[in-house]
Amino acid sequence: MLLRVRAAVSQLAAGLGAGAGAQPPAEPRGGGAGAGRRSPPAAAFCRPAFLQLTPEELRRADDHTGRAVQSPRDGRRRLPWSTGYAEVINAGKSQHNEDQACCEVVFVEQRPSPRARLSSREGGGELDGGRKGIYFHYWALFDGHAGSGAAVMASERLHLHICEQLRDLVEILQDPSPPPICLPHDTADPNQVSSAEDHGEVPNDAVPRFHLEKAVSHESLVIGAIENAFKDMDDQIERERASQHLPGGCCALAAIYLMGKFYVANAGDSRAIIIRNGEIIPMSREFTPETERQRLQFLALLRPELLGKEFTHLEFPRRIQPKELGKKMLYRDQNMNGWAYKKIEEDDLKFPLIFGEGKKARMMATIGVTRGLGDHDLKVFSSNIHIKPFLSCFPEVRVYDLTQYEHCPDDVLVLGTDGLWDVTNDKEVAAVVMEVLTSYEPNDPCRYTMVAQELVVRSRGVLKERGWRLANDKLGSGDDISVFVIPLGGPGNYT
Amino acid sequence: MLLRVRAAVSQLAAGLGAGAGAQPPAEPRGGGAGAGRRSPPAAAFCRPAFLQLTPEELRRADDHTGRAVQSPRDGRRRLPWSTGYAEVINAGKSQHNEDQACCEVVFVEQRPSPRARLSSREGGGELDGGRKGIYFHYWALFDGHAGSGAAVMASERLHLHICEQLRDLVEILQDPSPPPICLPHDTADPNQVSSAEDHGEVPNDAVPRFHLEKAVSHESLVIGAIENAFKDMDDQIERERASQHLPGGCCALAAIYLMGKFYVANAGDSRAIIIRNGEIIPMSREFTPETERQRLQFLALLRPELLGKEFTHLEFPRRIQPKELGKKMLYRDQNMNGWAYKKIEEDDLKFPLIFGEGKKARMMATIGVTRGLGDHDLKVFSSNIHIKPFLSCFPEVRVYDLTQYEHCPDDVLVLGTDGLWDVTNDKEVAAVVMEVLTSYEPNDPCRYTMVAQELVVRSRGVLKERGWRLANDKLGSGDDISVFVIPLGGPGNYT
Repeated sequence: MLLRVRAAVSQLAAGLGAGAGAQPPAEPRGGGAGAGRRSPPAAAFCRPAFLQLTPEELRRADDHTGRAVQSPRDGRRRLPWSTGYAEVINAGKSQHNEDQACCEVVFVEQRPSPRARLSSREGGGELDGGRKGIYFHYWALFDGHAGSGAAVMASERLHLHICEQLRDLVEILQDPSPPPICLPHDTADPNQVSSAEDHGEVPNDAVPRFHLEKAVSHESLVIGAIENAFKDMDDQIERERASQHLPGGCCALAAIYLMGKFYVANAGDSRAIIIRNGEIIPMSREFTPETERQRLQFLALLRPELLGKEFTHLEFPRRIQPKELGKKMLYRDQNMNGWAYKKIEEDDLKFPLIFGEGKKARMMATIGVTRGLGDHDLKVFSSNIHIKPFLSCFPEVRVYDLTQYEHCPDDVLVLGTDGLWDVTNDKEVAAVVMEVLTSYEPNDPCRYTMVAQELVVRSRGVLKERGWRLANDKLGSGDDISVFVIPLGGPGNYT
Repeated sequence: MLLRVRAAVSQLAAGLGAGAGAQPPAEPRGGGAGAGRRSPPAAAFCRPAFLQLTPEELRRADDHTGRAVQSPRDGRRRLPWSTGYAEVINAGKSQHNEDQACCEVVFVEQRPSPRARLSSREGGGELDGGRKGIYFHYWALFDGHAGSGAAVMASERLHLHICEQLRDLVEILQDPSPPPICLPHDTADPNQVSSAEDHGEVPNDAVPRFHLEKAVSHESLVIGAIENAFKDMDDQIERERASQHLPGGCCALAAIYLMGKFYVANAGDSRAIIIRNGEIIPMSREFTPETERQRLQFLALLRPELLGKEFTHLEFPRRIQPKELGKKMLYRDQNMNGWAYKKIEEDDLKFPLIFGEGKKARMMATIGVTRGLGDHDLKVFSSNIHIKPFLSCFPEVRVYDLTQYEHCPDDVLVLGTDGLWDVTNDKEVAAVVMEVLTSYEPNDPCRYTMVAQELVVRSRGVLKERGWRLANDKLGSGDDISVFVIPLGGPGNYT
């Protein structure tokens, strides 16, 4: 039942070009920094390609009063593993839905060795060694802010950066022996280690030169590849933000299934959980001014110039008034989790780096998330103080080994933007999952889409006189909501 | 059954003096920085006072070949709550047992208000307002290195610093309303907030001036007090290290029972777990070059001058040889949890900030723990590079609310230095606890001492031809071993 998803024909600006795509490309493609120039402007508003919306449907999806739920529909193509997806636009906070989504099966083609590249150039374009590679499945949500450009671009490119990072590792990941600590000059091919060019040295993974040699797992290589791919994505947005009109930034949550394991990478306040036999397994944590307070305060303390004399690295429970100088006030610094009293000094009258609570917590009075892609031009209002580098592009990656447990068709991985989690907690999501799944046959491929739709509808609520309301009459989410429901033991998996 | 422990008569060097002691002191004592001058040199080697060892017993305790287990014995005084304690010296790695322990019941006397202090001085010594205060129970282990001075001093003083930090909070902690965000000038007494001296302002906890005002719990005030007490302790060691002969440093693990809650503060690689109804609840985590890698790398990146051109902030799985320049090697930086390959550059030939694995992991090739007290003079071998501030004195504090669960006499909190945990894991400790406790009557006050002794004996092993061996013939711990076993629902608790 696996349907191929669109061939990932976009090329990376990184210069190495070919290798990514659901189908092995029919002809070798050259590198170059031309991705931006050849593809339509990345900032153009769109919805995920897999929804295949007609212009009329796109118009409906963009209607803030109807807030129609969008899903891939029967009769159109189905997502890998019969993944469920649903989304809905916000209640009017921005013109367009600033969430974006991507679902791909990506072929990672092993990078040709330098010698092969040389002979390829000399011989007129034929790549050496066939089309060796590995596939990964990929699902990702991007929750944009201050414009849709960064989220659109990230949804089109992040998986290609992951692919690019993995290309050097194809052979190493397929070799059951531990990854080599050191590779020879200018090649990622471990077979080259003992070649003549390497001055006849013994490969270090065969005969360790040092007793103190740390074992590195295949898994940690994949984690490193994903971490660096987020950085590459962020760098690309930085490079192309002017030419491609990429204002704003986005949170990014990606699930990569590779060789039996799920790698869930999160940078921002989206969230992923696994529901397995009714048990909830968190697969991410949120990165907000509150959860990252100590990292931010530590950076501010060590690099006070980044605060532009406007902010103090200390946290206070509220703003201090000048007339309170000399009194004692509760504070905490980068070393503290508790609070203590300190005598208020002149410097404490500056605005606190971290301020506010819960969803209202802000870093530098500007932004409510502390990890994500983009935002290179984001500054504190009417100042020249940049939010980067306090805002980091690096994700936390959690690993789930699918082979360690026998999964049933009701076990799922749920990815959602904060529009979901703000009003529906883990337990409520798990309850909806179980409720909906039991009303469909286990082998009905539509059941995961039904779950995703139900999660979105219940978090959006129904439009009443006093706005969007949930069944319990509480306020529904006025934010964009996007949800993937990925079956872990459903029909067609692992194919 | 509660026995009073020794009155904490030592005074703090901080200058505020009186207020700490199991018994309210009979007469007011003046402040001053004289603690060091009046008490015997803190660095003098000793064993915990509660062991009440005779000179002959002290000699035996110091014998590396016998390694006799020491415990408070029946007929001598019993520890609060019938706490079990046992210790054993190392197998010869240092002349003395470098672990230290402390167990106290501390009275925190409310600090007199400035006006009371004024009238007290004028009137000739009588403190105003009686002897208002609160008690806390305190158990702590200190695992010294490079000398016993820091551990001895910390075992004699840390609880006094905690007491000193809490003195300002006595009234606030006893008041069920939320702690005031701001206190008036030069007083910690919330009753003073609306006094005439305060220009008639409304107290801010009655009428919040700002909507954005963060709620701070009583619990987080206690956490903050403990965190700052560790800093005060570290500062005192720094000030007195020359005059008091305090070489080296120590890990510190302290459990404070205050108003129904346990606060477990850990700085180093000691460890605390609760065993409740057979379930293991970790109450601390270890701070080592491996667990704190990212914090250390982040600091090194931002303050490269602290590395003295000798170290690189990057981590590599092994040392790099100069001839490997230009090859690709696995590395990770402060942002990464995974590993990736990078081309080796000149700068990568420096020694890695973090090096080695497990118990052999070292920071700057010098020290295997990254939190603790002391070590102000510790430098990288034959260099002028200080280990501080990479080594931090701040603990992580975890809270366990004793009132949330009905505890039985077999539920315990176990504190142990790494001598215990290096050879006996959580599950094995829990098994020993259950095995020993079931062989004694629930109301036998000796049973927790028996557990502590058994834990120490099983981790030390038995001296055979091939050294100290466990029952399974594996190597026993050659380190100093110290263990507290604190009953959570035993006889005499909460009194």
